[in-house]
Amino acid sequence: MHLTGNLLIGQNAVTGSREALRAIDPATHQALEPAYAGGTGEHVAQACALAWAAFDDYRETTLEQRARFLETIAEQIEALGDALIDRAVAETGLPKARIQGERSRTCTQLRTFARVIRSGEWLDVRVDNALPERQPLPRPDLRQRQVALGPVAVFGASNFPLAFSVAGGDTASALAAGCPVVVKAHSAHPGTSELVGHAVARAVKHCGLPEGVFSLLYGAGREVGIALVSDPRIKAVGFTGSRSGGIALCQAAQARSEPIPVYAEMSSINPVFLFEAALQARGEALAQGFVASLIQGAGQFCTNPGLVIARQGQALQRFIQAASEQLRQADAQTMLAPGIFAAYEAGVGALAANANAQHAASGKPHTGPNQCQAQLFITQASALLADPALQAEVFGAASLVVACDDDEQMRQVAEHLEGQLTATLHLDDADIGRARALLPTLERKAGRILVNGWPTGVEVCDAMVHGGPFPATSDARSTSVGTAAILRFLRPVCYQGMPDALLPPALKHDNPLQLRRLLDGRRES
Amino acid sequence: MHLTGNLLIGQNAVTGSREALRAIDPATHQALEPAYAGGTGEHVAQACALAWAAFDDYRETTLEQRARFLETIAEQIEALGDALIDRAVAETGLPKARIQGERSRTCTQLRTFARVIRSGEWLDVRVDNALPERQPLPRPDLRQRQVALGPVAVFGASNFPLAFSVAGGDTASALAAGCPVVVKAHSAHPGTSELVGHAVARAVKHCGLPEGVFSLLYGAGREVGIALVSDPRIKAVGFTGSRSGGIALCQAAQARSEPIPVYAEMSSINPVFLFEAALQARGEALAQGFVASLIQGAGQFCTNPGLVIARQGQALQRFIQAASEQLRQADAQTMLAPGIFAAYEAGVGALAANANAQHAASGKPHTGPNQCQAQLFITQASALLADPALQAEVFGAASLVVACDDDEQMRQVAEHLEGQLTATLHLDDADIGRARALLPTLERKAGRILVNGWPTGVEVCDAMVHGGPFPATSDARSTSVGTAAILRFLRPVCYQGMPDALLPPALKHDNPLQLRRLLDGRRES
Repeated sequence: MHLTGNLLIGQNAVTGSREALRAIDPATHQALEPAYAGGTGEHVAQACALAWAAFDDYRETTLEQRARFLETIAEQIEALGDALIDRAVAETGLPKARIQGERSRTCTQLRTFARVIRSGEWLDVRVDNALPERQPLPRPDLRQRQVALGPVAVFGASNFPLAFSVAGGDTASALAAGCPVVVKAHSAHPGTSELVGHAVARAVKHCGLPEGVFSLLYGAGREVGIALVSDPRIKAVGFTGSRSGGIALCQAAQARSEPIPVYAEMSSINPVFLFEAALQARGEALAQGFVASLIQGAGQFCTNPGLVIARQGQALQRFIQAASEQLRQADAQTMLAPGIFAAYEAGVGALAANANAQHAASGKPHTGPNQCQAQLFITQASALLADPALQAEVFGAASLVVACDDDEQMRQVAEHLEGQLTATLHLDDADIGRARALLPTLERKAGRILVNGWPTGVEVCDAMVHGGPFPATSDARSTSVGTAAILRFLRPVCYQGMPDALLPPALKHDNPLQLRRLLDGRRES
Repeated sequence: MHLTGNLLIGQNAVTGSREALRAIDPATHQALEPAYAGGTGEHVAQACALAWAAFDDYRETTLEQRARFLETIAEQIEALGDALIDRAVAETGLPKARIQGERSRTCTQLRTFARVIRSGEWLDVRVDNALPERQPLPRPDLRQRQVALGPVAVFGASNFPLAFSVAGGDTASALAAGCPVVVKAHSAHPGTSELVGHAVARAVKHCGLPEGVFSLLYGAGREVGIALVSDPRIKAVGFTGSRSGGIALCQAAQARSEPIPVYAEMSSINPVFLFEAALQARGEALAQGFVASLIQGAGQFCTNPGLVIARQGQALQRFIQAASEQLRQADAQTMLAPGIFAAYEAGVGALAANANAQHAASGKPHTGPNQCQAQLFITQASALLADPALQAEVFGAASLVVACDDDEQMRQVAEHLEGQLTATLHLDDADIGRARALLPTLERKAGRILVNGWPTGVEVCDAMVHGGPFPATSDARSTSVGTAAILRFLRPVCYQGMPDALLPPALKHDNPLQLRRLLDGRRES
């Protein structure tokens, strides 16, 4: 497909009229054609008007229609073939194999949500039959289902150009819930976004859905994003990105005359706790696993292990030594975009200049532009407890080892942490008691707790939680990865005394969708 | 029990040191003893510190322990006997039978949540077993459950001194979820609050729970409430009250360094749509039902029918005439508090002064202080569409009939409404088509849609939704009445690769709680 640089408002390609942006190949620092002229407030309003017009029809499509739609999106993305892979590699500097894997993950995600839609469990159907004879008052017939919130604004993420961008997790879960989606493309990969956007628009057309189900906008600054979140027809927001960006969207959403939920996934340093017996028994293997997780994808994962916490002593010294040796052999890797590279350099610079952080090791120096040189630092727990700057996320392959005096100080450090996406424990049998003592704190701090693994793999499944207390996300009651993500875009509606002819299929008396309802207080089997 | 006028911080009765408040018997306008000296920021901090200290233990009590605790609260409330009834009648002006009914509802609510706790469905357990052989990467063992958000601040409501106050729906659902509760008593019924607060505190003691599970504070102004919502140990808020009060709490919650969810139930005028065939066939019966719903409890329900929408014509004229006749026979009723009476008078005065609202009928004039004289007004749809003031909630027995030119204008009025707790349709078979056309709009506007009933009864059951889009509530994704209310105070946590010894009982491999898990994508039967 020929890239046009146009916005996609429903089925219409429209040329923007604001400042243009171009992707930059971070490996060469060369700008890539075409230019993407930014959308205006008027373009935002057009996309939202179409989404609003589509909403009532789209949310009442059958489960099968909606499932087929998501599957068709996956097919259309696959049909883009190598053009998508090549463009994504050029725009992100990510290796081809990673982009191929991410395409597969994206399509699996869409097909997984198709399964979720068909199961109908997300409708959470509850039926309390009428009790006309009840004293002192009869009970009317009461039925509850979940309905879609409304059109959703999705912001593409820089670090997952496919799996958390135009047709990524937020879009898939919002579409699954019955919400039209207006995407603001991430400015670092506009061409990838256009290709995928057209794949979604083709699926909309193939499936005979109203065109407003999907639109795609571009914009260089914050104008388009803030206009989108402020539009009265948008009823929820999905975002993955920086803490400042997420907070700005939350503030815009709260400033509306009708505030709306924002699901912003923002900031996490993903503490890893190394317990004594494990550290003694297999410090070198832990160091190897840690560095592999740290440098994977140039450290550009929300779940990158940015903090390692352990009791000081010889075992920790050996771990640091082994990790340092590993790290020194790590090649510099091209980062996603010049801005992300600059932020990484600034973050590493701040750690290097912090009198309380001691530099332990660096990876191999860069051989090209925008390359991330991995970095390892060490600090004392007392310093971390005193200095909030040591908890700041450095997005990229940098990590900080925190040496603690004793178990109590490890617990203090855990208690002192901000909200996190993940917390990881490495332990042997002899550590179980200590780990148990730490778990209540970690449950309050993180959305996912791992034992003897590394946080950088995020499985797309029913049990996944990719979320966590602020500032990891703006709403700890949810996950952005995994099937429970659909629940973010729903609200309950109760129907009282409604004749069968008016009830939606999910609630009709003869249960035509064969759902397992909560019927008079009992779950149907 | 002797009323002391003290705050209850855990098990300790503490005398406040700020401006004192006294209940006023609205029927006599006499102040009631004792005085309740307001709490300070220090008292708030003490209650929150105790709640925080109790949280990790309380949230991991067994399902049986927690269920028994809620049942014990119900027993302790019942054991208060007539002292509770008499004080609540004196503080609220509500009839004795109503207070007795509300006590029964409050205890039923607590016992219903005990059933919910025991069922364990709210844990939403999801298990994805490890797939060590999967290619290209193995899948680790992943398990998800819901955990309690943290200590919850509950604000007692004026209009349900028992069922939505100290041990009402918000408290019951938060305690059920595993959250300690700090209540700010409503200033209109401090004695009722103290009696119930001591009942809860006795249940805490009888059940051997940490004392911080429950505290009760008083305060004349906003100081205690804002301090409570701003305390970093409070993790969610439940509120039923005015729009301005709810919005103030939302803003305080958003201004925190860690924003938290606020479940504020605020403002609703509960439109009732009368369709043509029903109006023709049984206009007088509808008028009778409408007035009964309007004047029930002096109209002091969040679900009071404040707006009636129908096509103009002879049938509507007959309805208005019949309703007016009914209304003129309605006795004036004592309102809950002088402030509520004053607000009602102001709201009615504004309608009377609005050139677009025509006065139709008044109930009988007052015979004592603070008595609500029922009022009925009429307006044209075009006026309602043009004037937001006609949509303002008048808390009390006042309603506005909106005459529409045609079906399309009825739809326009529906589309123009703010978010509502309820929307009601009165229809006969011949109206089904028209009602169907209106349903998509109403589903977007309201949390509960009733057919051929009246909104003022709110059943406590699984299917109830007492919620709705802003400004009906601050969070349309939830309900404050019914068993789904427990879901407001939970968040998911995922456990990856965790040894059985460390897993909570809900997630252990042999499923000791016998929960119906979502196991490898299938619901267990």
